[in-house]
Order: sequence, then structure tokens, then C-alpha cells
Amino acid sequence: MTIKTPPDLSNGAAWMGGRVIPIADAGVPVTDWGLTHADIAYDVVPVWHGGFFRLEDYLTRFIASLTALRMDVGMDRDAMRAALAEMVAASGLRQAYVAMVAARGRNPIPGDRDPRNCDNHFYAWVVPYVHVVPEEIAARGTHVWIGKSVRRIPQDSVNPRVKNYHWGDFTSALFEAKDAGYDTAMLLDHAGNVTEGPGFNVFALFGDRLVTADHGVLHGITRQTTLEMADSLGLKTETCALPLEELMQADEVFLSSSGGGVVPVTRVDDRVFSNGAPGPVAQRLRATYFDWMQQDRLRTPITYPA
Amino acid sequence: MTIKTPPDLSNGAAWMGGRVIPIADAGVPVTDWGLTHADIAYDVVPVWHGGFFRLEDYLTRFIASLTALRMDVGMDRDAMRAALAEMVAASGLRQAYVAMVAARGRNPIPGDRDPRNCDNHFYAWVVPYVHVVPEEIAARGTHVWIGKSVRRIPQDSVNPRVKNYHWGDFTSALFEAKDAGYDTAMLLDHAGNVTEGPGFNVFALFGDRLVTADHGVLHGITRQTTLEMADSLGLKTETCALPLEELMQADEVFLSSSGGGVVPVTRVDDRVFSNGAPGPVAQRLRATYFDWMQQDRLRTPITYPA
Repeated sequence: MTIKTPPDLSNGAAWMGGRVIPIADAGVPVTDWGLTHADIAYDVVPVWHGGFFRLEDYLTRFIASLTALRMDVGMDRDAMRAALAEMVAASGLRQAYVAMVAARGRNPIPGDRDPRNCDNHFYAWVVPYVHVVPEEIAARGTHVWIGKSVRRIPQDSVNPRVKNYHWGDFTSALFEAKDAGYDTAMLLDHAGNVTEGPGFNVFALFGDRLVTADHGVLHGITRQTTLEMADSLGLKTETCALPLEELMQADEVFLSSSGGGVVPVTRVDDRVFSNGAPGPVAQRLRATYFDWMQQDRLRTPITYPA
Repeated sequence: MTIKTPPDLSNGAAWMGGRVIPIADAGVPVTDWGLTHADIAYDVVPVWHGGFFRLEDYLTRFIASLTALRMDVGMDRDAMRAALAEMVAASGLRQAYVAMVAARGRNPIPGDRDPRNCDNHFYAWVVPYVHVVPEEIAARGTHVWIGKSVRRIPQDSVNPRVKNYHWGDFTSALFEAKDAGYDTAMLLDHAGNVTEGPGFNVFALFGDRLVTADHGVLHGITRQTTLEMADSLGLKTETCALPLEELMQADEVFLSSSGGGVVPVTRVDDRVFSNGAPGPVAQRLRATYFDWMQQDRLRTPITYPA
């Protein structure tokens, strides 16, 4: 009798077609429209100290994205929630970055280009928690490059509120940023307004007034959490267009992301903010975010195997 | 002694990491930036009667795309050509659609967002020849929908001359087109000029003057072949902006694609062209394309196993 050792999932796991497998074994077919047409909606929910944070808010947005893209993956909200919980529990990961993905799938009719005929499908994966800005850089304050040769894909080309994999604009800006010695990048729209960066929204503080873009950006769950936290701290919040020239006049600038919460910015191009050190409001919000991540009202605990 | 039956590759094959495998077994990892950031350059070369058509032109464009995206897949032109030939020969397919793909790959540093650190890689796949417009529809003339809610991704967001998988705008327009009973769709840019559609360039004929877009579109190899064929037929060719109002005044409209050559258009929205039948110049160019596909000067024969 052979006893099979269960695979090691501590580096990551995936849920595919009802099975939990090591992440290294999880792939998408080379002819899946999810790949060949970037025809995917996804969302990323953090797991913190063994519980999902704001899971229902992430599921709500994800399901809204599926509706917008007219995908039917044959699973309802409860089935998706169960798949995520089963996968994370199996991985044993207590601090994790959990992606849920809906792909258009393959079209079973050879040569057919009708997106209505594809086999839409759901999958998920989990890896150890990701900070989109490494913690040591968040601690000293992030240096952000404004994309020069590239503008954010407009919302009447690809809707940024449907969280998607169209990242060519971000990648071009990241190359510029890294070549210039910056940590990350953000993009302007074609009117010169600040939009977002790879994996984050952008905030500017003017006195006690906090501004973030409304159009042409993802309405991030961490953006929403940041607005709620700012409100609880007595700041006035405003979601509206944020021209670059205005951002450059801000007292503080910071980012929000499900991968790391609130991240202070100390430099945008050659403009230095808050004397080159993380600003007090950004730091306060950053600490508050990690507090809120542990509050029962926003957590869904995961039952791990004994 | 067990003799393994070689896998059936007649439905398609893939070349991955030096091995030819059934296409159904070929996948891209769920964390590959090629997937998660649509960070891919690709090209598609047709195989016709057992030979590649204009293979060197496709390879030249593909390698230019890799350079533009700063990818190094660790294979030179000869190695790529050999991989494609080996794969198609093994498949036995004599009429085929051959995709060569370069993906950004995975970043081996957990959480790192520097695109310069990813493991770029090459793969390829082949399926039986694809007509992007089915032959029976090409024969009666295609009905094309102009995307209404969506505009082509601008070239300063994602460069369309680097053949890529950012197809969200096309997919939105295809849903509109199919719901409205049209065969396919094309997109305008934000200035109202005709750009391209999912897998094809667009041509408009005014007397003996043939026009196709220059900016904001892929410079298709079949677009180039069409310009060369038009030249050989004594037409004047012009690559310039093509406003929708001008296209609507054309004598003939047609599409060009590596998946099917020249395809007559008989309807754009509710405007009927050439009395609802394929135009004479489009038909002439369509026939010429299939002739040229068999000319030795443009062919690279494939050596199939006996």
C-alpha cells in the first residue's frame, strides 16, 4: 500500500474545475480567450491572520464584473466563496493574496468568433501575501513616476471598473519608472488627469480635504476602505477629476491597494512631498488599515485543517 | 515491450519548452504576466498547401514586437523558424493557422513588480486553417458593425503595431455586432477614423484609389500583401486617416486578414455597398491572394514525415 504525500501548497495553490492543486500545476489553455483576448475579469481579496478581509465586497464587485462582461461561469456566489475558502484552507496560508478569476474560455466551434459561444469558467489561486510596494519602501515613502510615453487606456475602450488584465499601458510605464530609478508608476488620462497605477488608486490631501479620481479608474475596495477611514478621522473626501498640476500642489500623496493598504508617496517625478518623509495622515491611515483588517465586522474567518 | 501510440495532433499541436505536444495539453501558468498583464507579443503565419506563406515577413514583425516590448526569449530567428517547422510537420496539417507567442513570463522574485526581472519565454501552436470570416459569409459579402459604445484603444496607450492580446475593445464591439445580427465589427478611434477589427485591417476603394488606415492599427502582413496586389493591378494605394464618413462614400469596402485573405464587405451598419454583392475589385484581390499563397517566391515548404 502506497501512501501518497499530499503536495506542498505553502508556496501557493489553485482551484481549478473543483480541485485544489499546487499553483505551479495551474495553467490556462493557450487558445482560451481569457489569454488570447485578455478576456478576463478578476478580483483579489486579502487574507490576514487567517481571515478574508471584506470578502463580500470583493465578491460583489467580481460578480458585477462578470455581469458587465456577460460571462456565466456556472457557479453562484456561494459556490465561489466555498471554492476560495477550501483553497486557502488547504494551502495553510494565513497571510495571503487570493485571486478569483473568470475567463471567457474556449470557443468549441472551430474558427467561430462569437464571444457568446465560449465556455466561460472560474478559477482561483492563492499565494503568500503580496505588498505591491515592498514594506521597506512603503516605510521610507514611495517614489512614483508619471508615465511619459503612455496614457491610461480610456474607459470607453476598456472599462477599468471591471478589474481586468489589460496592463500594457502600466507595463510600459513600469519600464520607464524602473529605468529612471523610481519604485512604481502612475498614469494620466488623455486630458492630463491622474488615474491609477499598476494595482493601486491614488489619493491627494489638501489640508483636511482628501481627493481621489472617480472616472477612468478601478473603484478599488481599498480605495473605498480608505475613504471610510478618512471619514472616520474627520477628513472631507471628494471623488472627482484630479489634474496632475493639482496633485503636485498636495500636502500629501498616497496610494491604496489590496496588496499593502495605504502606501505613502514621498516623490512624484522630481517633486518631493512632505519633506521626503511619509506624511502624518498617510501614516495614520496605513496603521488604521492594518487595524481594520483584524476587525470582526469586516472579517470572514477561515477554518484550516487541524 | 510497450509501443506508445504517438498522440493525435491533427486537431492541433503546441511547441513548448522544446517539445511538441497536443494543443489540449498546452497551457500558460496562471501567474505568468503574459496572462495576468496581457504582456504578450504574438504573430500568426498561415500554412497553405504544406508551405508557410511569407514566413520571413511574419518573423521579422514578431522579432520587432519582441524588441519593442523588451523581451528576450532566449531563441534567435533560426531557432524560432525551426520550432515552427518542427511543430507543423509533426501535426501533419497542410492548411494551418500557426501562432508564435512571446510571453513576459513569471517574475521569480515574490511580490516583485519589475518587468525587467521576468522569465520571458516563447511558445507556438498550430490549428487547422482559420477564416476569420467564414468562407460562405465571405462569398456573399460580410456585414460589419461599427462599435458604438467603444473606441479602439489608442496607440499611446497600447501600441497596435506590436501584435497583442489587448482585445477588450474588440470583444465589446463583437457583442454589439452579434446582438444586432452582424457578422463582425470594426472600431473607430477617438477622432472618428476607421481603424481595424478583430483580426483584420480595413480597405476602402474610391474609383482606382485604395485607402487603408496608417495610424492606430496593426500593419498587417496581409494588409501589405493587399497593397502589393493592388499595385500590381494598377490601383493607386494610399495609407492615411480614413474618417467613417469617407468610408461610407466608398465604391467598395473590404477586409484583409492572415486568416482568409481579402474579404468583401457588403454592409457597414445600414449602408449597403456595391448593391449588396461583393465588389469586383475585392473579388479580384481575394482570388489573387489565394494565387499568391501558392507562389514559390513567397513560400517556405515544410518537410512532413513520410
